[in-house]
Amino acid sequence: MAFPRDTTLADAGEFGLITEMTKHFPQGKQVLVGPGDDAALLRITQGHVVVSSDMMVEGRHFRRDWAEASHIGHRAAGQNLADIAAMGGIAHSMTLGLAAPADLPAEWAVDFAEGFAAECALVGASVVGGDITSADQIVISVTAIGAVTQAPILRSGAEPGDVLALCGRQGWAAAGLAILKRGFRSPRVLVDAYRRPQPPYAAGPEAAKAGASAMIDVSDGLLAEAAHIAAASEVTVDVRTAALTVPEELNAVASATGADPLGFVLGGGDDHALLAAFPPEVELPEGWTVIGEVQESGEAPVTVDGEVYGGATGWTHF
Amino acid sequence: MAFPRDTTLADAGEFGLITEMTKHFPQGKQVLVGPGDDAALLRITQGHVVVSSDMMVEGRHFRRDWAEASHIGHRAAGQNLADIAAMGGIAHSMTLGLAAPADLPAEWAVDFAEGFAAECALVGASVVGGDITSADQIVISVTAIGAVTQAPILRSGAEPGDVLALCGRQGWAAAGLAILKRGFRSPRVLVDAYRRPQPPYAAGPEAAKAGASAMIDVSDGLLAEAAHIAAASEVTVDVRTAALTVPEELNAVASATGADPLGFVLGGGDDHALLAAFPPEVELPEGWTVIGEVQESGEAPVTVDGEVYGGATGWTHF
Repeated sequence: MAFPRDTTLADAGEFGLITEMTKHFPQGKQVLVGPGDDAALLRITQGHVVVSSDMMVEGRHFRRDWAEASHIGHRAAGQNLADIAAMGGIAHSMTLGLAAPADLPAEWAVDFAEGFAAECALVGASVVGGDITSADQIVISVTAIGAVTQAPILRSGAEPGDVLALCGRQGWAAAGLAILKRGFRSPRVLVDAYRRPQPPYAAGPEAAKAGASAMIDVSDGLLAEAAHIAAASEVTVDVRTAALTVPEELNAVASATGADPLGFVLGGGDDHALLAAFPPEVELPEGWTVIGEVQESGEAPVTVDGEVYGGATGWTHF
Repeated sequence: MAFPRDTTLADAGEFGLITEMTKHFPQGKQVLVGPGDDAALLRITQGHVVVSSDMMVEGRHFRRDWAEASHIGHRAAGQNLADIAAMGGIAHSMTLGLAAPADLPAEWAVDFAEGFAAECALVGASVVGGDITSADQIVISVTAIGAVTQAPILRSGAEPGDVLALCGRQGWAAAGLAILKRGFRSPRVLVDAYRRPQPPYAAGPEAAKAGASAMIDVSDGLLAEAAHIAAASEVTVDVRTAALTVPEELNAVASATGADPLGFVLGGGDDHALLAAFPPEVELPEGWTVIGEVQESGEAPVTVDGEVYGGATGWTHF
């Protein structure tokens, strides 16, 4: 351990913490100046720059008794890396802000930083800077910076006749969260999916190269994200439930909790699957499954099996 | 007003808020995709990219009864724009995260966003994205992205024999804060200096062009920042008090509160003045004043009039 067991953030101090956290932050060759100066300095040689920022709040987006610090680090990084992937890009540089109570164990912050950096390493991104300060509640703030080397894929490019396709797990994290909320810890595979999502980062640039017309990452719920594509593209998106994969464990959880298993898949977030539209003639890259169709704008932005859906479509922030 | 008086963040909702806030965010020509997609897309045509992130926490870095929302927006932007300036760069793009209680007046968030954008406009920076979510306490998170078109100025380049120079107000904001802490509201010029700092953004690139050897912005205290230069450059920095300007109002406040007026100047932060070292042969650009000297590494990283200083050198984060 970097600090003795009872060391708090206040004991460790800002600079002691930064020293221990940044030990986990190897710097890629695009980084000319990493953490420690007023700003980081990056050499950007190709493509356009994509930027995305997100915040995660304790008690709202995560609970320390539901996941280890390193898992929360993986999730904090993953949700931003997925945003870059959803533009067809690859993140190369991240900043990490941590506001936290002074009595938080310093080891929590270091383990969190280690998980954060490990997730970044999956795509080759460096943690180039950040901030640490005290607050009543843990608030994590992340900015991801990446490169897009072909045309970026926006939410607004879907056309009637396009197929709607999904890549990555969907509904697993929501089921895992439902399990944790009830005080259980299994099925482990679903709980782990919530604790440490596995966004399909490489699938974003692959979809862009294949010719996707619109793309988004599923942070807040499949239908909610489909509605964002529909609104931006001025189309209707129809999701076909027969095409959605519901894993065995998810059926078991739904049955035990009296929930609709499809509810997790249609309304659940946090897996950071990628949702995209492709022109019908495009051969989908590996890992993508057709789950619906883009249609002319109609009575609702999103339909399920041709009908307006009455269930929860996603998460609300207030 | 964008919202009726009693509208809260919860009433306005995430997307209603984003709509009203982003009305204040004009987009510069480097912005190919601004707020509203998974990530912003920027066309970077020249120079290296500089990135800096900071967080501001209510009750810790600001109080709503001490400053208007728009002023807090100016400060939140200014402290990050100053970090970019301190590298010799100019910020072009910003992301803004706001975590806040659901019962916060929506108008506060909109006024905050307006002040934030107005400060960004001073250097031509666009607010290209961000995040909004609920939290128990207001936490503001900002990332500034800028360009450096000549060699960047780090903290680590100061050499013995260099002069130490300052550009911008120093100690004013700390005195203003001391006034507010005692429940007073004047002298107004100092309170306003705290509420809405005026960092000398253009002086950063000018110092870089003139040949500065090291630079930093004074966020946390003049001596604390001088110590950062000293540590990174492996030198001692001596500050000469006779060279420091103490405005009349600051003397009056010190006298009324029984404080040492120099204490505000030496230990105060939040003005975001720029502190730099220049080789002795360099002619200082306009606005810079010599306030000391860089010396061989000695018994302390920073001395005041040749002596180790016993007072507060700056602000601590925990």
